[in-house]
Amino acid sequence: MKKIHIIGLGLLGGSFALALKKAKPEIKFTGYDSNSQNQEDAIALGIIEEAKEKPDMDTDVIVLATPANTLSELLVKTLDEIGPNTLVMDFGSTKEALCKSVADHPKREQYLAGHPIAGTEYSGPKAAQENLLDKKVFIICEMEKTNIHLKGMAYEILEALNMKLRFMDPEEHDRHLAFVSHLSHISSFMLGKTVLDKMEDEKNIFDMAGSGFASTVRLAKSSPAMWAPIMEENKKNILDAMSLYIASLSKFRDKIIADDYEGLANEMGKVNKIRDILDLGQ
Amino acid sequence: MKKIHIIGLGLLGGSFALALKKAKPEIKFTGYDSNSQNQEDAIALGIIEEAKEKPDMDTDVIVLATPANTLSELLVKTLDEIGPNTLVMDFGSTKEALCKSVADHPKREQYLAGHPIAGTEYSGPKAAQENLLDKKVFIICEMEKTNIHLKGMAYEILEALNMKLRFMDPEEHDRHLAFVSHLSHISSFMLGKTVLDKMEDEKNIFDMAGSGFASTVRLAKSSPAMWAPIMEENKKNILDAMSLYIASLSKFRDKIIADDYEGLANEMGKVNKIRDILDLGQ
Repeated sequence: MKKIHIIGLGLLGGSFALALKKAKPEIKFTGYDSNSQNQEDAIALGIIEEAKEKPDMDTDVIVLATPANTLSELLVKTLDEIGPNTLVMDFGSTKEALCKSVADHPKREQYLAGHPIAGTEYSGPKAAQENLLDKKVFIICEMEKTNIHLKGMAYEILEALNMKLRFMDPEEHDRHLAFVSHLSHISSFMLGKTVLDKMEDEKNIFDMAGSGFASTVRLAKSSPAMWAPIMEENKKNILDAMSLYIASLSKFRDKIIADDYEGLANEMGKVNKIRDILDLGQ
Repeated sequence: MKKIHIIGLGLLGGSFALALKKAKPEIKFTGYDSNSQNQEDAIALGIIEEAKEKPDMDTDVIVLATPANTLSELLVKTLDEIGPNTLVMDFGSTKEALCKSVADHPKREQYLAGHPIAGTEYSGPKAAQENLLDKKVFIICEMEKTNIHLKGMAYEILEALNMKLRFMDPEEHDRHLAFVSHLSHISSFMLGKTVLDKMEDEKNIFDMAGSGFASTVRLAKSSPAMWAPIMEENKKNILDAMSLYIASLSKFRDKIIADDYEGLANEMGKVNKIRDILDLGQ
């Protein structure tokens, strides 16, 4: 493996290159970002050596790390243009529509559908961190559809990055992610909005906010340019998750209205078991 | 100041004693907890030297650090029994009903209504941390109602603990806290519930949860024995905050239904300004 080309030089694309460079210094990284400032930053930060829109024809792996709603078109176009020995991977947060968009593509077997479960509330190449992907989960969808020889390069990369592989189908992926990732971003954004709306007439409210509030609202710092597309791509599952969330909140509110504090304590006690589950997951 | 008595030997009462002991080793700490295991743990951990239900008559300061719905009765009883040179402080998360309950008490001036903005999702004396209160905000309500000489002891303690004082009236306190603390606990509990309910038929969902989910759901580990009483005491304000939160979520959902991704991005972009505000507050 000698050449990797990254399209989308943001938090994920940048962190990927920084980590892989350390593990495999022989690889040459090129890349492209529609934001020219990101390209300049990526070169200055050592993420890529050279910026170019078209990867060299002997590029081994092309990584697509752009917003979720741009990936289908970009993936089709990229597959159309590559030679027979190039693998294309993506890092998108949604998989169902993307996998469908190339289901009948003649070069489908040159694509590996991936999703690294890693991120921060910051974005852009300057937010990239060499250790962001270390020991994190990397989900692969429809792994049986990727050519076995090209897939070998992906495994080599993911092993070098010290990532834990998980396999599932795209529908399952999107349904799960709506609950464990997309919903928590929305709950955090709306918590931030509710408090900011209140603050317009109540000064200094944040002076009283403790570390608990900061933790719960952290994801409200996330990039709209990344998250609006995820909502577009995973609309159905996100609406399901939101409906259940709103229904749970409404029932909880009804218990407060009814002064059912024993019922509230029971309900919170049941949710406490998330402690064990999360601790296991770490 | 020679003797301090703490009623309620949990996270806050314990952290208070550990920190103050270090700053003022000459003070003797006694205490009481209705849970005898907590009392034993508090002695073993060096939080108090002696457990007793009734403080000595020459106790300088009595700290009430029990759940919010027990404080009114305990405060009245404690004021009834103390001599003229003892100050009573509380650490309760709600202040309006509590201050009203002693508004006409003949010893009202021996009480200081306080609320340290500090905590973790854990509870009990074993969760106590010597540095939990360091540099945190301590809110004092109705400070003008406390006797100036007794208040001097409270200031001496809070200065030794390195806490930042804020002053406000009890109604304002409860209204603000509903938004910046109580609501974020409820949003987190209900996020945890929604995902746990889903997990019943979907195995291993947490395997895909990243650090964002962990951060947003952290408060769902909190103690129901502490939080159900806060909902009872701050019912009106919490219902207001929940209604606004649910309305924001519903409007956001409507935008997803309408495929208004530009509107969603605009809305999230506005909430992003919480980044500057939170960073200022740290």
